Amino acid sequence: MLQPPPAEPGMREEEVDTPALILDLDAFEANLDAMAGYLAPTGTRLRAHAKTHKSPVVALQQIRRGAVGQCVQKVAEAEALAWGGVPDILVSNEVVAPRKLARLCALSRISRVALCADHYEAVTLAEQAAEAAGLRLSVLVEIDVGAGRCGVAPGPEAVALASRIAGSPHLRFGGLQAYHGSAQHIRASEGRAAAISRAVEQTRRTVEQLRQQGLSCEIVGGAGTGTFPLEAASGVYNEIQAGSYAFMDADYAANEAAPPFRHALFVLAQVMSVPRPELAVVDAGHKALPTDSGFARPWQRPGLAYVGASDEHGTLRVAGGAAPKLGEKLRLVPGHCDPTIDRYDWFVGVRQGRVECLWPILARGMMQ
Amino acid sequence: MLQPPPAEPGMREEEVDTPALILDLDAFEANLDAMAGYLAPTGTRLRAHAKTHKSPVVALQQIRRGAVGQCVQKVAEAEALAWGGVPDILVSNEVVAPRKLARLCALSRISRVALCADHYEAVTLAEQAAEAAGLRLSVLVEIDVGAGRCGVAPGPEAVALASRIAGSPHLRFGGLQAYHGSAQHIRASEGRAAAISRAVEQTRRTVEQLRQQGLSCEIVGGAGTGTFPLEAASGVYNEIQAGSYAFMDADYAANEAAPPFRHALFVLAQVMSVPRPELAVVDAGHKALPTDSGFARPWQRPGLAYVGASDEHGTLRVAGGAAPKLGEKLRLVPGHCDPTIDRYDWFVGVRQGRVECLWPILARGMMQ
Repeated sequence: MLQPPPAEPGMREEEVDTPALILDLDAFEANLDAMAGYLAPTGTRLRAHAKTHKSPVVALQQIRRGAVGQCVQKVAEAEALAWGGVPDILVSNEVVAPRKLARLCALSRISRVALCADHYEAVTLAEQAAEAAGLRLSVLVEIDVGAGRCGVAPGPEAVALASRIAGSPHLRFGGLQAYHGSAQHIRASEGRAAAISRAVEQTRRTVEQLRQQGLSCEIVGGAGTGTFPLEAASGVYNEIQAGSYAFMDADYAANEAAPPFRHALFVLAQVMSVPRPELAVVDAGHKALPTDSGFARPWQRPGLAYVGASDEHGTLRVAGGAAPKLGEKLRLVPGHCDPTIDRYDWFVGVRQGRVECLWPILARGMMQ
Repeated sequence: MLQPPPAEPGMREEEVDTPALILDLDAFEANLDAMAGYLAPTGTRLRAHAKTHKSPVVALQQIRRGAVGQCVQKVAEAEALAWGGVPDILVSNEVVAPRKLARLCALSRISRVALCADHYEAVTLAEQAAEAAGLRLSVLVEIDVGAGRCGVAPGPEAVALASRIAGSPHLRFGGLQAYHGSAQHIRASEGRAAAISRAVEQTRRTVEQLRQQGLSCEIVGGAGTGTFPLEAASGVYNEIQAGSYAFMDADYAANEAAPPFRHALFVLAQVMSVPRPELAVVDAGHKALPTDSGFARPWQRPGLAYVGASDEHGTLRVAGGAAPKLGEKLRLVPGHCDPTIDRYDWFVGVRQGRVECLWPILARGMMQ
């Protein structure tokens, strides 16, 4: 079952059923415009990450503003986007399950798709799937530029794997995936700059070594909301994979020199209990507001702090006479936008206090 | 969109698409039997908590083994259960939204329902909804027996609120909700026993004061998987609200003298990258395995530890030659069963290595 829609167009925000995922449309559109405006003079393309928004509706708005396509992490996300009209999708991640590779090949009949590899066996599996489907699949090599997660070492190891891909009659070498995930939330700007500077140099060296072998990179992709100005200015990366910029969250807002985007995403919650003057309880706990990157923050409510989450309860500490009323509805800024959006089936688009639209989050839960 | 079913009956477990929620049916059934066997001689009823399993299929198996009904935290969960045939449902939580109260009244035409209150205004809202629906709604008073969340103080404050309920022509006083949530994960048995001993005394005193006012408690409910033997032996509580016992998780397993249930719930994940000998990466990050109560644990794989989660990646530290192969599938014990189950649309029921059934998790995401 899907969640029933928590609102209807025309309602006032305070009539929306809770918990609900509120998208402030003015802020959201300003964020999309700001990113497009930022990247245009750099010549760097935007391939926004759909792991954040999980929605073809959002993807198509990014594409209308110039994004060349979308990134996803999962084949099931790629399916939801392609079925929703997104024409160009990169799985910025490894895929090694034969059934998933077959699904990705099937998808490539309706959208342009590519995936990443960091192992010879993974390349062979992609090759077998492409051969069975009778098509040529585009494969990027993922290099580890500091995140310490997936990826081969930059330099000769990456060149060798790229040559293996380029030498296959069923594959096409698509370029490099060079995302430094752990740099995104380094709080100090200097630390972020240093980490990305190293990533850029490793990527630049690998691109150059590939060129010496006659291999060109259609895509050199990476960067997130925390670091994209650095990659965009590098002269090496040609695609930016930011996702959170459209929404922002408490975690990105805590960065020094935080990215210049507005909070567009909120969870609307209702005060369901006011047991003591210094305590209020809302109906959004960690099922509604995942806590992997810290607690949510009450929006424009000085004196209120979200200090504890159980499955379905959020406890707010009340100070300075800021006590909310029983039944009152509050906006909360999620700690981390990606897993929060992934808990909901609907964006409730609000403009100046009125519900303007509901958008389905079609790739919600698409983990496979 | 719902997640596509990751398996079909008859498949071997290693053929299941990942990440998937695996229910080991032998262990699960043994857990249901063990709880029924434990409570029978105490005379305490089981009203298992559906916030854990989110599924009428599981609820009905608990009821077939003697459970009197189910608890839920949300009206939308109550709907999913009632529509799936569950005949007796307690919303063990406050409900103050008029639309939600109207939905609960509508539901009471097909199932027996009750809810909790901890405020006079909340009682008035329930009364108005019941009057509008032309029925009598059962309301329990929630008392705070140590959790420091919702609930009025035990004793006179609870008695006064109960009298207000009992005096309404549209409501029925249903008893006491006295759950000590924060005691469930006190690691030391002595600490848990002390906390529940205080809760029992406060509840006993309140029940006695209610009796002096001529108010009897059909339900005196509370207890979770971490403490239920104490409440069941108290002579005060008559309903046990445990939910996790059916599945178990890493958090409950870490309690001293952990509850005597088997691990029945796993997330099956695939090794998608083996970038270095000491590191393997699986396709289940914190979207697949929420981390609010700590990381998952690899099951029966000594030498492997799940040490980091990003949105779609879990990183495993490999020691002692335990390296998994690329593409291998591993069972992981979730850190916390409730929010983990709530990420999936399907239980994949496995018995001795074969998929036996798929059960829909109909109340997945029902937060409203």
